[in-house]
Amino acid sequence: MSENEGEEGGVVYEIAIAVPKWGENNNNKLDKITGDFDNDCVGILVNELKKKGLIVERVVGLQNEFVKLAAPLEILGKAAAELRFRKRTHIGMDFPFEWDEAEAFVKLPDGSLFSWCERFRCYNHIVHGIVNTEKLPVILKYEDRTIDWKSGESLVAKLEAIGVVKEVFPLHDEKKRKQLLRSWAMNWLDFTSQPIDDICSYYGVKIATYFAFLGMFTKWMVFPAALGLTVQLVDFGSMQLLVLPFFFICVISWAVLFFQFWKRKNSAMSASSSECTPTELMKKQTSDRTKEKANFQREEWFRWLMRFRNDAFIIMSIICLQLPFELAYAHLYEVIRSDLLKFCLTAVYLLAIQYFTRMGGKVSVKLIKYENNENVEHRANSLVYKVFGLYFMQSYIGIFYHALLHRNVMTLRQVLIQRLLISEVIENLLENSIPYLSYSFKKFRAVRNKQKREKGSGKSSPIPRVEKDYLKPAYAASIGQEIEDGLFDDFLELVLQFGMIMMFACAFPLAFAFAAVNNITEIRADALKLLATMRRPIPRADATIGAWMNIFQFLIVMSICTNSALLACLYDREGKWSLSPGLAAILIMEHVLLFIKFGFSRIVPEEPAWVRAARRKNATQAEEMCSKRLLRSISGDDKWFREIKKNE
Amino acid sequence: MSENEGEEGGVVYEIAIAVPKWGENNNNKLDKITGDFDNDCVGILVNELKKKGLIVERVVGLQNEFVKLAAPLEILGKAAAELRFRKRTHIGMDFPFEWDEAEAFVKLPDGSLFSWCERFRCYNHIVHGIVNTEKLPVILKYEDRTIDWKSGESLVAKLEAIGVVKEVFPLHDEKKRKQLLRSWAMNWLDFTSQPIDDICSYYGVKIATYFAFLGMFTKWMVFPAALGLTVQLVDFGSMQLLVLPFFFICVISWAVLFFQFWKRKNSAMSASSSECTPTELMKKQTSDRTKEKANFQREEWFRWLMRFRNDAFIIMSIICLQLPFELAYAHLYEVIRSDLLKFCLTAVYLLAIQYFTRMGGKVSVKLIKYENNENVEHRANSLVYKVFGLYFMQSYIGIFYHALLHRNVMTLRQVLIQRLLISEVIENLLENSIPYLSYSFKKFRAVRNKQKREKGSGKSSPIPRVEKDYLKPAYAASIGQEIEDGLFDDFLELVLQFGMIMMFACAFPLAFAFAAVNNITEIRADALKLLATMRRPIPRADATIGAWMNIFQFLIVMSICTNSALLACLYDREGKWSLSPGLAAILIMEHVLLFIKFGFSRIVPEEPAWVRAARRKNATQAEEMCSKRLLRSISGDDKWFREIKKNE
Repeated sequence: MSENEGEEGGVVYEIAIAVPKWGENNNNKLDKITGDFDNDCVGILVNELKKKGLIVERVVGLQNEFVKLAAPLEILGKAAAELRFRKRTHIGMDFPFEWDEAEAFVKLPDGSLFSWCERFRCYNHIVHGIVNTEKLPVILKYEDRTIDWKSGESLVAKLEAIGVVKEVFPLHDEKKRKQLLRSWAMNWLDFTSQPIDDICSYYGVKIATYFAFLGMFTKWMVFPAALGLTVQLVDFGSMQLLVLPFFFICVISWAVLFFQFWKRKNSAMSASSSECTPTELMKKQTSDRTKEKANFQREEWFRWLMRFRNDAFIIMSIICLQLPFELAYAHLYEVIRSDLLKFCLTAVYLLAIQYFTRMGGKVSVKLIKYENNENVEHRANSLVYKVFGLYFMQSYIGIFYHALLHRNVMTLRQVLIQRLLISEVIENLLENSIPYLSYSFKKFRAVRNKQKREKGSGKSSPIPRVEKDYLKPAYAASIGQEIEDGLFDDFLELVLQFGMIMMFACAFPLAFAFAAVNNITEIRADALKLLATMRRPIPRADATIGAWMNIFQFLIVMSICTNSALLACLYDREGKWSLSPGLAAILIMEHVLLFIKFGFSRIVPEEPAWVRAARRKNATQAEEMCSKRLLRSISGDDKWFREIKKNE
Repeated sequence: MSENEGEEGGVVYEIAIAVPKWGENNNNKLDKITGDFDNDCVGILVNELKKKGLIVERVVGLQNEFVKLAAPLEILGKAAAELRFRKRTHIGMDFPFEWDEAEAFVKLPDGSLFSWCERFRCYNHIVHGIVNTEKLPVILKYEDRTIDWKSGESLVAKLEAIGVVKEVFPLHDEKKRKQLLRSWAMNWLDFTSQPIDDICSYYGVKIATYFAFLGMFTKWMVFPAALGLTVQLVDFGSMQLLVLPFFFICVISWAVLFFQFWKRKNSAMSASSSECTPTELMKKQTSDRTKEKANFQREEWFRWLMRFRNDAFIIMSIICLQLPFELAYAHLYEVIRSDLLKFCLTAVYLLAIQYFTRMGGKVSVKLIKYENNENVEHRANSLVYKVFGLYFMQSYIGIFYHALLHRNVMTLRQVLIQRLLISEVIENLLENSIPYLSYSFKKFRAVRNKQKREKGSGKSSPIPRVEKDYLKPAYAASIGQEIEDGLFDDFLELVLQFGMIMMFACAFPLAFAFAAVNNITEIRADALKLLATMRRPIPRADATIGAWMNIFQFLIVMSICTNSALLACLYDREGKWSLSPGLAAILIMEHVLLFIKFGFSRIVPEEPAWVRAARRKNATQAEEMCSKRLLRSISGDDKWFREIKKNE
């Protein structure tokens, strides 16, 4: 029984390979006539995929041809066993997957054995695992060229190199997509409820975590939004002076509590979803234990040093290059009187920062490649920190400039409204419309090209669904596509909004209400974007919000300091409060030290690498010992075990 | 082969039971004559102990009789299996201990299978596990009374209730004690090196952790001590103004780094020592899963509420009762001119705080009993926080008073020197001499009583070693003996010293040098105390410094704030720097919020209780499944497994 077969017995194709359309090149017409298909590379690929047990369908689109793939459960299971997925068993332990003992493993809430993330990795493993097992090279024909597929070489890698395989991409599952569209993106009745389980099974844990976070954030946002409205609109008479400090304390407590409860919720979520974690490969072990320990220590410190160097480099370049630039813009904008000049300046500025941030992102990605981080999520986190530094400067330095140097609260409020409205609303619009427009344009061009070529045929054939998927833009980050996907941009938007409303909470309490409204639309807009205009994203298994959590925490601390400064400015209307430079220096030193105290503990890891490695080694050894022997007894008819299953 | 048998085959007795001396009461002489020993309760106890397989020796002391116990390894192993100790196996996983598969479990570095902590718990289990297995009650005779030992009742509990068993206490192992005395307490050549592994195997992990911490702390202390000396003694000319801020920054960075590296070291230590952790008992499971979850949640919040109430109660009483008292003393001391009156005041004050802290400790212990904490170490931590609050006020409020209100750095320095010298040196002396004196007095009284009774016999018999051990004072905390042991006082001393030198670092840089010297002697003094004058303490398995870590961290943050205030006072000699009350209020609010931010995350646990419970349940289930089946194959002649063993 394949889990991919729908109720009507229709096969759900989950992966597609895009190849050039047969017959686009005239030379091939000859082959067609002579029927010399034997060595046609696409044909060989399809044959090999069929040999692997996959269900294959070839679809000819307008511009390209597509090989759609589906896999029976058994084929996926065997690939999972080869990949040594660690999966939760019924006794609660994680074991490497074995197809023969599949009964021992816990099924997902929707009844399937593998999550989308696991299935995707299995497909990838199968597709990229096609190698030439013969001794002799196989001759591949493509257009008028012939290529040797050497022994032991991967077919797909070879075809990708010569441009035959254009892309391997995941397909939308129309039935599930429509269902989600109904229950999620178009469900306008309840603003914050989302079918998180369905999102998780369709998009993977990482995206579900994002939406769970966004939903909870929006729900919690109601409290400060209401408070902010009250503070802004109601006149408290003689108590007016105490209102802002009270608001400040409430907002900070709210933020601290929110993140603590989010952590709780997140840990509960990841406890109930048993996503696979890749079995990490062990380093080669030297026989000498102390030598091994020294090696680990040396490597750990080297890695630390590289990361430190990179961070220092980024921070220095932000301070030395970006800060003067941003300050210059803010200053010029203040100084210039003419509206036209202001407009020109802003246009130049916007162009320049587009270029700068893209360059910064590229530099960061390059630096991170040298960092030798342990796994993909570590690398992604490292990138997040670095790029956030860029955006932090870019988004807030102008506002700081207005707030602190000019001591002009009204200008600050104007700037805040401007930024919130412009950045949030317009960005939200752009974010959704640009992918849609680009998709529409591509589709239009494809249809027109087709019509041009086949002038005679009159009515054009409709675009197949798989080609529509192929034409949709990928869910990619605006910087560094290799490491992060589109979640990066979504989180960045959320974080910048959070920083804006928190850091200037006392200057503009109404901002929380703006943000609440914005987030309610953001949920639906992001859902629509993912469901309708984007290609189905590549699933990720990470179940936390990762580095963003630390950035949120950092912003809370920042907002305590900035709001205090704001309050001091607000209450000091007459400019009577003086701060002697000595005292100011001491205060600054104190704050820097407090940041060192709380930031430093993250710099030196608490657990030495060799301890972690030893633990991992132990776990691996235990698995080796346990798994096969035990899995049999778990999946078999052990009396005691059947009772556990019954109790669940 | 028993591991307790020394090289010469001499049995090492590790536990003793103190019972009243036979023949102290004249009535018994009749029994002696008639030879009616059958129902003598001590005799029955000894018989039962022998039946359990223990090696028993009765020693008659001057005042009491002692039943010394040793156990062959097999008896311990069976007790360990009954207790379901979780122990590390050769494949790196922890499994409940099974005596038949003892080969599968990792031996300690000194070659023994069980640590002292595990052995002690086994002894306790065996001794308290003697129950009447017959249907009929056994008649016990004690002096002229007879007592029924009912069916199913514990013999030792019964005898404790009627006062026959006075105490069950651990014995010193003379050979190892003397060895430690040589290599540790009397090793004056290298000041900071300690045989941590030996300490760990003799005293258990908790005490070894304390000494490892003390050693590392003392070693690291050299840096700020040298810096403090330099700052105090060298004149930097025109740079003098910058010296103190520089010293401040160095000291804070030093403290932050030290604790981070201590965490690393501690995690490495606990990775290499595989101390048993008790298998926690599971709560009764209801069949309904959501109901279970709701139960856990309700219970967790209830526990949280109780803890919160207790903490609030303690904090309020500290602020409302202790703070005014301390301030009154500090103020009176400042105001009074007469030296005699000052002396009287101090004497009254010292008496009063003795009484107060003892009362506070008792109240805390009582409060904690209602808290329903999960395990002993949680309870101990909760006590540590509460009692530290008391001591914090008591130790520092006077100093704060001098420092901040009088703005008089010279008085502050005097007070600091006074406190450091008095509290450290004199307390150190007292700490070591009082137990010794009390022990000597008890011994002297015992010998005199004996001589009085046996006037005729001329030469008195020597005191047996076991009675000497019995007369030694127990390693108990000055407050709440049930929950914490003597480590509480030692850590408290260390923490108060740390707070003193850190919080007032800028006022008195020389303090670090004082503290360094003090800690060097402290190591030896504490070692001597434990080895020579104290009864062997009851071992504890906890491998971290627990709640004290958080207190140290709190003190670092406090010291950032106090030192900033100190610097402001120091540089503002002319009193020119003014701080308008509004600004001061905002600054205070900011600091309070920063503390909320960093303290609050500890208040709401990150992982809901039901998640933890589910995890634990899973682990237990896995164990049930795995252990027996696997242990056989680990301890047996599995080919693959033998290879692992060889590699280790």
